[in-house]
Amino acid sequence: MLSSLKRLLIGRPLKSTELGEHKLNKLKALAILSSDALSSVAYGPEQILLVLVTVSTVAYWYSIPIAIGVLVLLAALILSYRQIIYSYPNGGGAYVVSKENLGVNYGLIAGGSLLVDYILTVAVSVSAGTDAITSAFPSLHQHTVGISIIFVIIITILNLRGLTESASFLAYPVYLFVLALFILIGVGIYKILTGQVSPELHAPIGTPVAGISLFLLLKAFASGSSALTGVEAISNAIPNFKDPAPKNAAKTLASMGILLGILFSGIIYLAYYYGISPKVEETVVSQIAEDTFGRSVVYYFIQGTTALILILAANTGYSAFPMLAFSLAKDKYIPRMFTIRGDRLGYSNGIITLGIASIFLIVVFGGHTEQLIPLYAVGVFIPFTLSQTGMTIKWIREKPKGWIFKLLANSLGAFISFVVTIMFFLTKFEQVWSVLVFVPAIVFVFHRIKKHYELVGEQLRINPNEPAIPIEGNVIIVPVAGMTKVVENSINYAKSLTDQVIAVYIAFEREDEKIFEEKWNNLHPDVRLVTLHSQYRSIIHPLTKFIDTVEHKARESNYWVTVLIPQFVPKKSWHNILHNQSSLMIRTYLLFNRNVIVATLPYHFKK
Amino acid sequence: MLSSLKRLLIGRPLKSTELGEHKLNKLKALAILSSDALSSVAYGPEQILLVLVTVSTVAYWYSIPIAIGVLVLLAALILSYRQIIYSYPNGGGAYVVSKENLGVNYGLIAGGSLLVDYILTVAVSVSAGTDAITSAFPSLHQHTVGISIIFVIIITILNLRGLTESASFLAYPVYLFVLALFILIGVGIYKILTGQVSPELHAPIGTPVAGISLFLLLKAFASGSSALTGVEAISNAIPNFKDPAPKNAAKTLASMGILLGILFSGIIYLAYYYGISPKVEETVVSQIAEDTFGRSVVYYFIQGTTALILILAANTGYSAFPMLAFSLAKDKYIPRMFTIRGDRLGYSNGIITLGIASIFLIVVFGGHTEQLIPLYAVGVFIPFTLSQTGMTIKWIREKPKGWIFKLLANSLGAFISFVVTIMFFLTKFEQVWSVLVFVPAIVFVFHRIKKHYELVGEQLRINPNEPAIPIEGNVIIVPVAGMTKVVENSINYAKSLTDQVIAVYIAFEREDEKIFEEKWNNLHPDVRLVTLHSQYRSIIHPLTKFIDTVEHKARESNYWVTVLIPQFVPKKSWHNILHNQSSLMIRTYLLFNRNVIVATLPYHFKK
Repeated sequence: MLSSLKRLLIGRPLKSTELGEHKLNKLKALAILSSDALSSVAYGPEQILLVLVTVSTVAYWYSIPIAIGVLVLLAALILSYRQIIYSYPNGGGAYVVSKENLGVNYGLIAGGSLLVDYILTVAVSVSAGTDAITSAFPSLHQHTVGISIIFVIIITILNLRGLTESASFLAYPVYLFVLALFILIGVGIYKILTGQVSPELHAPIGTPVAGISLFLLLKAFASGSSALTGVEAISNAIPNFKDPAPKNAAKTLASMGILLGILFSGIIYLAYYYGISPKVEETVVSQIAEDTFGRSVVYYFIQGTTALILILAANTGYSAFPMLAFSLAKDKYIPRMFTIRGDRLGYSNGIITLGIASIFLIVVFGGHTEQLIPLYAVGVFIPFTLSQTGMTIKWIREKPKGWIFKLLANSLGAFISFVVTIMFFLTKFEQVWSVLVFVPAIVFVFHRIKKHYELVGEQLRINPNEPAIPIEGNVIIVPVAGMTKVVENSINYAKSLTDQVIAVYIAFEREDEKIFEEKWNNLHPDVRLVTLHSQYRSIIHPLTKFIDTVEHKARESNYWVTVLIPQFVPKKSWHNILHNQSSLMIRTYLLFNRNVIVATLPYHFKK
Repeated sequence: MLSSLKRLLIGRPLKSTELGEHKLNKLKALAILSSDALSSVAYGPEQILLVLVTVSTVAYWYSIPIAIGVLVLLAALILSYRQIIYSYPNGGGAYVVSKENLGVNYGLIAGGSLLVDYILTVAVSVSAGTDAITSAFPSLHQHTVGISIIFVIIITILNLRGLTESASFLAYPVYLFVLALFILIGVGIYKILTGQVSPELHAPIGTPVAGISLFLLLKAFASGSSALTGVEAISNAIPNFKDPAPKNAAKTLASMGILLGILFSGIIYLAYYYGISPKVEETVVSQIAEDTFGRSVVYYFIQGTTALILILAANTGYSAFPMLAFSLAKDKYIPRMFTIRGDRLGYSNGIITLGIASIFLIVVFGGHTEQLIPLYAVGVFIPFTLSQTGMTIKWIREKPKGWIFKLLANSLGAFISFVVTIMFFLTKFEQVWSVLVFVPAIVFVFHRIKKHYELVGEQLRINPNEPAIPIEGNVIIVPVAGMTKVVENSINYAKSLTDQVIAVYIAFEREDEKIFEEKWNNLHPDVRLVTLHSQYRSIIHPLTKFIDTVEHKARESNYWVTVLIPQFVPKKSWHNILHNQSSLMIRTYLLFNRNVIVATLPYHFKK
């Protein structure tokens, strides 16, 4: 039943050879991998105005030069990641670039912050989208957490079904959102050009503003840069593209950069020209849309697609997280299970881990994940800085054709990203300090896991100079609790394997001992019975003590010891609570604490 | 570490032979087994007044005849349970009496309602005691649930340590409470006799009251009878007494009856004479104490011991529940584990179950368990009625010496208990209807469990006419994932047991197959290797299919199939999440779904 539910939700398993058919073309990849970046347009411009409004509304004209700065950073990032795509076509993005050019620890810092960041992406964007929905239907407000969780589960299932299927499903809302914003910007500019918008609504560029400072402008710039989160996703997911993967990925990245640039500058320009102030109860995009179209169908179309894309931004995390986890797991920094492809060829363990972790965050923050946005931005700009510094060093080291230009692009990107990172720490320290705790902690854990896997590898390696000691024979110990068919089966099985079978009976009462010994000698006169009296009514302690004695003697003559334990398998699973407690306890205890083979003989009840 | 914490909390394990030393003398038994009944005095009289006040304060004089009715019921119950103690000296109380005289289902109804009732006792009395404490320290009010849970945990640990130790610890508060109430009643009566209390405070007995009805009087009587809950506890716990157990139990029961009678009538009389009305914010006992002593030290002494005994009333549940569970488990109506004595000779599984269940109730009801009181009273009066009806039938059937008197006592008790039960259903239906759902449900589950154990017994019985088919030989299948020391160990072990060893390698890629086969033939040319190609990257499915083929052929020639699976045992337990997932999955799947022996070979990492 469970297995057919699984089939229904995620579809039939796919053959490994079908992998190629399930890769992304550019159109779908753009939809799936850029939803995070594009959705940032819905809040990025607002972040700039929120800083400027603290001085005065006259300062709004500064949003234009700041936006130009953001566009320069965007261009540098796109150029830089384009170079990363070609240089590291197997994906891994900032993690691989930093690891190879700056050293392992820088790579782990980049990888660790991105891992956490994708979890934050999912939690933050699903909560933001849910907020948009509950704003429209206030009666749903009390169910915010529940609705967010349902969205996370839906996106998780879609991703377990596979990238292409989720791409087909998710492409429409992304392109509808782009279309909606193009209509908004187009009509807005048309109205400005035809003089339908009063030019008096805004102060002209260059108007002197009292109280403005470089610090404030940098803060506004850093806040606006949060619109660039998600730019790195494509570089992590190159192996998901159809061949030629790097070329397709680079083209997709360029298209995304152009789209993002147009939408971002369009919104900033309209907001400036319309003289829009950020409001608590209405977003900047909503204000622009209302000023342009009134509360018409077009307005609701823009609002609806915006809410949708905020939720879908989560999907970018679902594409990038499992790929990054795969890279880290291949290098043994996180558990191996993240390298295994599931039924539908996705890295299901990564997908499920991401889903569970983001649901956890949503529950812990009660759906109010907006406080996590600065943390999330820092978590992106640290790897931005590291990866571009890494590329800079690569160019200096390798000096390929045209390296001066490449070096310039990357070092400019590295410098701006570094400035943005520092600005976040300077201006929003109380929201981002935790990065300084958890990133080192994660890197520490990465190293511990790697160390463990290495030690294990060493211990498992066969040394031809050290041949295994030959096994001279076997002793099988069978704990018996009564004279039943199961005991009979166990004894017969043990006897078929070796002559050295010892049955052990643990008695709580002296009288039981005698009675049992007599019965035993009638039925199995050929099998040695040892009865142990347990004064303290414990089964494990006397049994373990006995096993230790036997094992000690056995090892001396290179005999191995096996303990054979019967296990009832009831027809109905609830019956398990009526049986098997001692059997499970003994098995687990012996496996983890003694060096004996534990064999379990199942006895399937027929009714 | 865990085990030394256990030692610290519950003490060293005791030998089975020490059981006698840990039985209760009368003084301790009275403290431990009557705290529930005695504590009822703190709220029983109030329940009567709460019904009478709905007519008028003049009606208070009816509390005197009603109290006499309750005393008659008490006397009948004490006599009846005294006879139960002598007739059923092995304990089990209402369950055993009803089962033997009325039939299994009546026994199960009595047993089921008492089981649930003891859980309610613990939840209700701990919450009531916590309320008393938080009333005194209002700042603690928000932590009510937490404090209640801590009390439950403390009482659970005390009981896991053993009855006598918890008796020594708990006897003081019980006797202090009795002392406090004796002082209160004594001084109160002295003041009345010396004329210090105005006789005008109350209407004389016999004053006509408008609007009084038989229904109302019966309702008041039923409410007052809730002071008698807990009377049955001693009859369930006879085996906990020092020898001669039945005689000591009967004496303890009589003492409890006398104490309860004195305290109950004393409080009722003072309340009547002082003309006390029930108040929301102050209990009747508190009002009497204040009228007698003012807010003096004595007043606080009375209040403090009352709060304590309310919490300790829970302890009665801890003595009776495990004994009752033992009786039910011995008859196979509940899981066998309830028959096992723990380290300290108590039935620890029963104690722990009771603790967990009552914590669950406290959490679900947010500490407001007063709504459960009527439910709890009904849960007691159903077994009262059944057990006394059972005794009546026993006397009619057996007609021993002096049976007429015994018959009279029991049938009177049965009749009054029955009336009280019916009154609860008539007057508080919306609070007690759930009994009609959960008691049949519990009885149904009891039968299902018994049926299951019987079927199992049948299937396990050795039939000498059906000798087991002899085992001709063994096939051992060893799934291998690479060429490691663990695999080498497994193969050597398997070879030492049989010649029929098959290694199975599951490849996800065609190339892996070839490479592995070559390596294998170099190292183990004598062991057959089967490579399976898993198109769907599943390990379990191809492995199971292969095992099925082998097993099918093996069974034909009476060969048994063993699957040998290696298991890593890391040095640190957190390392387990880095390994063993597939191994555990395969093991569990095979054990529950296939008829093969699953042997686990541990490989202990040294670092």
